[in-house]
Amino acid sequence: MAGNHKNTSREGSARQQMSLAIHFHPTGHHVAAWLHPRSQIDAGSNAAHYLKMAQTAERGKFDLIFLADSLAIRESDLRAEGRWPQYVAYFEPLTLLSAMSAVTSHVGLVSTASTSYSEPYNLARWFASLDHLSGGRAGWNVVTTGNAASSRNFGRDEHFDHDERYERANEFVEVVRGLWDSWDDDAFVMDRASGRYFIPDKMHRLDHKGKFFSVRGPLNMRRPPQGHPVLVQAGTSNVGRDTAARIADVVFVQEQSREKCQSIYADIKARMGKYGRVPDDLLLMPGMAIVVGRTEAEAREQHEFLQASIHPDVGRALLGAELGNTDIGDADLDKPLPLDRIPVTDQGARTTVQNLKDLIARENPTVRQLYQRFSGARGSYQLIGTPERIADEMEHWFRTKAADGFIVQPSFLPGGLDDFVDLVIPELQRRGIFRYDYQGKMLRDHLGLRRPSRLRNR
Amino acid sequence: MAGNHKNTSREGSARQQMSLAIHFHPTGHHVAAWLHPRSQIDAGSNAAHYLKMAQTAERGKFDLIFLADSLAIRESDLRAEGRWPQYVAYFEPLTLLSAMSAVTSHVGLVSTASTSYSEPYNLARWFASLDHLSGGRAGWNVVTTGNAASSRNFGRDEHFDHDERYERANEFVEVVRGLWDSWDDDAFVMDRASGRYFIPDKMHRLDHKGKFFSVRGPLNMRRPPQGHPVLVQAGTSNVGRDTAARIADVVFVQEQSREKCQSIYADIKARMGKYGRVPDDLLLMPGMAIVVGRTEAEAREQHEFLQASIHPDVGRALLGAELGNTDIGDADLDKPLPLDRIPVTDQGARTTVQNLKDLIARENPTVRQLYQRFSGARGSYQLIGTPERIADEMEHWFRTKAADGFIVQPSFLPGGLDDFVDLVIPELQRRGIFRYDYQGKMLRDHLGLRRPSRLRNR
Repeated sequence: MAGNHKNTSREGSARQQMSLAIHFHPTGHHVAAWLHPRSQIDAGSNAAHYLKMAQTAERGKFDLIFLADSLAIRESDLRAEGRWPQYVAYFEPLTLLSAMSAVTSHVGLVSTASTSYSEPYNLARWFASLDHLSGGRAGWNVVTTGNAASSRNFGRDEHFDHDERYERANEFVEVVRGLWDSWDDDAFVMDRASGRYFIPDKMHRLDHKGKFFSVRGPLNMRRPPQGHPVLVQAGTSNVGRDTAARIADVVFVQEQSREKCQSIYADIKARMGKYGRVPDDLLLMPGMAIVVGRTEAEAREQHEFLQASIHPDVGRALLGAELGNTDIGDADLDKPLPLDRIPVTDQGARTTVQNLKDLIARENPTVRQLYQRFSGARGSYQLIGTPERIADEMEHWFRTKAADGFIVQPSFLPGGLDDFVDLVIPELQRRGIFRYDYQGKMLRDHLGLRRPSRLRNR
Repeated sequence: MAGNHKNTSREGSARQQMSLAIHFHPTGHHVAAWLHPRSQIDAGSNAAHYLKMAQTAERGKFDLIFLADSLAIRESDLRAEGRWPQYVAYFEPLTLLSAMSAVTSHVGLVSTASTSYSEPYNLARWFASLDHLSGGRAGWNVVTTGNAASSRNFGRDEHFDHDERYERANEFVEVVRGLWDSWDDDAFVMDRASGRYFIPDKMHRLDHKGKFFSVRGPLNMRRPPQGHPVLVQAGTSNVGRDTAARIADVVFVQEQSREKCQSIYADIKARMGKYGRVPDDLLLMPGMAIVVGRTEAEAREQHEFLQASIHPDVGRALLGAELGNTDIGDADLDKPLPLDRIPVTDQGARTTVQNLKDLIARENPTVRQLYQRFSGARGSYQLIGTPERIADEMEHWFRTKAADGFIVQPSFLPGGLDDFVDLVIPELQRRGIFRYDYQGKMLRDHLGLRRPSRLRNR
């Protein structure tokens, strides 16, 4: 069951090859993706589309497929009068990944799930079940939910505040990992001759009683094939970085520069020591919104089509949403956004707001330029060009410790995935920085991560 | 999108053909199933086993696959020292059915999910998502959870009492159905020419505020292909029957006689009028624990093997569990169970306890006879014999209004499913009381049920 690490080095301090995640946002990562002719327009309810993309991702030897999630339709999603399908028609991701597990054999399956509006026992089961269904390919992107729209779907008028959300999340993760460790790996002997199915002494009750949760256990499921499904974390606030250093196998970041990623990379890896972990126990993977063309002109043309397709109502709605759910529907498109429209604090994603502020301070763009620049790619770094140019940049980030890998976010789907697999993957393989084939069967194998042992005395 | 009802009559008062569900209990329905050589011993964590069985069920033209669930390992599950794998290693059913959806095209996919320890918004999403994934094949078996072991996995020391559980369940179902109706069927126009993805006026916020739940909505998902996934209900207490008459599309029952089923059938269908429903809007489907053989002797031999394989500790543990979680591990195997060991009231399944009491009053069996008789088949009616004998009995129940169909519960899996599909299905088809092929694509088509319209003024 132990991981096969042929494709990455655990002895040295640096990985030899990068890891790649593919982010399946319904019609694509760009806010105008659904208007592109090579996007699947009904993606949010088209299972066949997703099953086919999962197989394409596996053909491309991606480490994992990543699905985000939302527990509500937000006010901002409705500001553009139906011109913007953000999270309005969206598969529940655990069920969708489970379906993908049946038509793939290697690619990892990672979903966002919130610690704010679910129960640790239920969540531990879903991911353990997905790990068993897929033969060890499940991962959980741990998020807290901080918008009022979600809280109102779960009987609360106000959501939890930022620090309480993280405190609750830390306890939640502790409970979930404890439940995954309910059984020793060799507890189920299943021996017809002796009539013994399992060994009761190899079952461990959790008996957790904490500030937020009281969970007795044990989980009614064998230990997951990976021991623990892979844990992903995305926040890069101070408390988020500490949580990442303590528990995350993978950290997703959305940043606008390589230098910023280098700084986060060094910071999080430096924090790991105090939790008894070494830097190679964690992969930092920035999101990259990618448009690839056979020529530079072809790539530009695809990108310009998408940028020009952003309706002003959509641009302002998305920008307002990123700014802590502020309504800027009346902002002049051809002037800079007045600084007093940007909230001082927010209850949304703090990092995103700071990045926006930095961009405004640096370049003083008009509202139109701002939403085209920022909202088009939803805050991710944009990379547009030929396969060589894209591979150059990815290689540079990888070799300069800005990234252990990337979340590839094609601007439109499935077309952008097909292009990436057919054009960019072979270029990365040729350079020796991406696998020609999977070396193991489990997601931890692909990522070069150890299978965690059961913690003692649980 | 409307149902195709060729295979059942909605005009007359009686269906022409029966409906069949197949219950996938891990190694099989019999408590000693895992000891049978034709059971899949590691079923609880073997995805390939389930995917193959799902395809076999579809080959047999079953209406639906049914999965039960448990939110805990109970004390009673541990009394037999590891000799009894009941719900100890068990897939989470929604994820498992989602995987099955990817390798099947017609068979319905129905799972138990509890209203006691989940949120209506989450549950509405899971089943809507499964309905979209499967092209309209999802069903939800609505249960309340009434055991202390489960409550302790969800932060409560005591579970909700019986009537409060039902009251909460009724409100829960109302919220879920309201969320499924968040969007008109034609809300998503997805028109690139006009730039309009959806029509905001065709979205309906729920704004539910009730005794147990406060849920604003709308659901972030298109209306399910079936309008509402099929609702299944299993309790046959007085309050359970009323709930069934009001909301259920299918009622599952576990009874020991045809006469009892006739009485329940007539009673529930008579109650439907006051809720504006006609009898054909609901199917009553009793569970039948079936062992089929090419000869009577072969069937008996298989059954006797299973009965003799029940370890006394397992028999007493299961019997104790059915009796409201009473420990009768010390009871003399060769004497009748003392009546004072049977609790007067219980917090478990009331109907099951009453059936046990009736059986004891009628036949005064020894403890060994009692657990062999009752626990072997987990409270279901047992049917053992040749294909002709089994078809005779099913036809008799169907024609005498004891059943609109059956939940087939093979004693061991996958062997018992293979036998049923190869031996019994052709016999039922030959008699004209079961379909040769599916007439529609959705579960409601197979069951001859209307697709519900959106309720107005939501």
